Amino acid sequence: MKAVVITTPGGPEVLKLLEVEEPKLTDNEVLIRVEATALNRADTLQRQGKYPPPKGDSEYPGLECSGTIEQVGKNVSRWKIGDQANKLMADMSGILVCVLISGGGYAEKVAVPAGQVLPIPSGVSLKDAASFPEVACTVWSTVFMTSKLSSGETFLIHGGSSGIGTFAIQMAKYLGVKVFVTAGSEEKLKACKELGADVCINYKTEDFVARVKEETGGKGVDVILDNIGGAYFQKNLESLGMDGRLFIIGFMGGVKAEANISFLLAKRLTVQGAGLRTRSLEKKAEIVSEVEKNVWPAIAQGKVKPVVYKSFPLSEAGEAHKLMEASTHIGKILLLA
Amino acid sequence: MKAVVITTPGGPEVLKLLEVEEPKLTDNEVLIRVEATALNRADTLQRQGKYPPPKGDSEYPGLECSGTIEQVGKNVSRWKIGDQANKLMADMSGILVCVLISGGGYAEKVAVPAGQVLPIPSGVSLKDAASFPEVACTVWSTVFMTSKLSSGETFLIHGGSSGIGTFAIQMAKYLGVKVFVTAGSEEKLKACKELGADVCINYKTEDFVARVKEETGGKGVDVILDNIGGAYFQKNLESLGMDGRLFIIGFMGGVKAEANISFLLAKRLTVQGAGLRTRSLEKKAEIVSEVEKNVWPAIAQGKVKPVVYKSFPLSEAGEAHKLMEASTHIGKILLLA
Repeated sequence: MKAVVITTPGGPEVLKLLEVEEPKLTDNEVLIRVEATALNRADTLQRQGKYPPPKGDSEYPGLECSGTIEQVGKNVSRWKIGDQANKLMADMSGILVCVLISGGGYAEKVAVPAGQVLPIPSGVSLKDAASFPEVACTVWSTVFMTSKLSSGETFLIHGGSSGIGTFAIQMAKYLGVKVFVTAGSEEKLKACKELGADVCINYKTEDFVARVKEETGGKGVDVILDNIGGAYFQKNLESLGMDGRLFIIGFMGGVKAEANISFLLAKRLTVQGAGLRTRSLEKKAEIVSEVEKNVWPAIAQGKVKPVVYKSFPLSEAGEAHKLMEASTHIGKILLLA
Repeated sequence: MKAVVITTPGGPEVLKLLEVEEPKLTDNEVLIRVEATALNRADTLQRQGKYPPPKGDSEYPGLECSGTIEQVGKNVSRWKIGDQANKLMADMSGILVCVLISGGGYAEKVAVPAGQVLPIPSGVSLKDAASFPEVACTVWSTVFMTSKLSSGETFLIHGGSSGIGTFAIQMAKYLGVKVFVTAGSEEKLKACKELGADVCINYKTEDFVARVKEETGGKGVDVILDNIGGAYFQKNLESLGMDGRLFIIGFMGGVKAEANISFLLAKRLTVQGAGLRTRSLEKKAEIVSEVEKNVWPAIAQGKVKPVVYKSFPLSEAGEAHKLMEASTHIGKILLLA
């Protein structure tokens, strides 16, 4: 089969579509013929040699994909070819699914633990379904499952126009949350507004702490989802209200923080961080199952839509990475196998 | 009645025992004739003008006390004089209790919301019972109720010989936790050892991060209870293991932190802070009720003992504050009314 190989750590040009060995299917996995995969910031870090895949996992990039089940490991009970529950969605060659993976999505085939496989949500194309697993599992497992973001609360999303952001806005609005976003251009903020964001803040021209305070009558927000890290740590603590929760999922603003941490005690704050990739198989399966229960119905009702900015063929993975690193996109970038 | 008054913000000498008005009892409160009160670090901050009491609360210091119920507000059903359940503990003049308060313990009488009143634990003197409410409610509501410290886990306590520390060691050992402590002298560490601490670290002569790593086979501890704040923030993040939880209850090392916060994501850490004093009445009542259910049986079994270093009369509150600020004590310092 063909896969995108990181030929050496470096820039987008090191990504090459090469002939490689097919993945070996184990008893608890399913083998997927990939239709589409989607880019994540982590892929660009992996390409630079800064985010190696967990031991034993595929060395090719790609943390999610959609496709057709080709083969099912002998311990896997769901997803058998011909499964009654999925017959309507199944085409002649197999069942259509999208999956969360710890690597290997930039390829024609990938083997995936069965617990990380999701049906295609109703009303979404097989291609666009590749845009959901990472954002849905990340957002659901962080601010909803862990930080307990709930109806009637306020929620600040940094990078509102990112893949994570465009999903988080829609999901939070669906659940009755008031949504604040930051982004770096009026075009990005306009997209956030159209997806339902209530308060749109241009971080290049406005002080987001002051704006959050102003819009909340001085109280601050209940939950923040942050991909900036160090550079925003102090400002995030300032932006939270009593019993506020900060969830950090990235460090685009570096890992070094200087902060007055008295806010932690004075406002009874909770600060957490987590990534999906290093979770245990059991925990990933639990998250995927919660996503199917809580997120898939919102997509099926058309309340949460895929936001796909551009698609490239696998052979142009380097171009796709260049686009992501230019940060001019809104939503997800796909690669088609 | 007499109460210790902060005559002006300043050193221990500003504390004066003066004749003041008796507190007014409201319908949801009980009036306590104080037997003993105990010192907390927060009292010394309040004396310096750095920790004012919440609006509407007593302006006298004292966050806990023991004593006799003198009068019961008309909406209070428990704690009525002659209450069957408490008859055995009641003397002729009333029921013996200890209470968590947001101020006013340094006095002959104090009015307390009924939800913050606890019976004297079996086997403990009325005087020594004053040493328990703050430490029990603080430790139980933080590392147990919130951080979910559980049997089989590892737990690092900074300031192991403090009131909080001496209680936390015993309570954690009672619940099957492996306990690490830091303290600043061999005498203090000896006391921690005698209370059950497994690993005793002199922070003046040892690097606690290195020692924690060594004693845990490189893994780090599950939970940290910290009263140092800024100066230990980075070291605490380093000392935690996967899914570790840091709970901050004080800032004896300042509020300014500089840290590499990538540990938050890489180890899926949770950092939290909270104080008891500003909690809602409902939350305080919930905590007090959980303490009665979970901590009082441990005291009744003799597994958790009061650790009282020295007692002073109310009139010598200034001397007691001097002793606390010298930090040579082990456990709690009491004032007798």
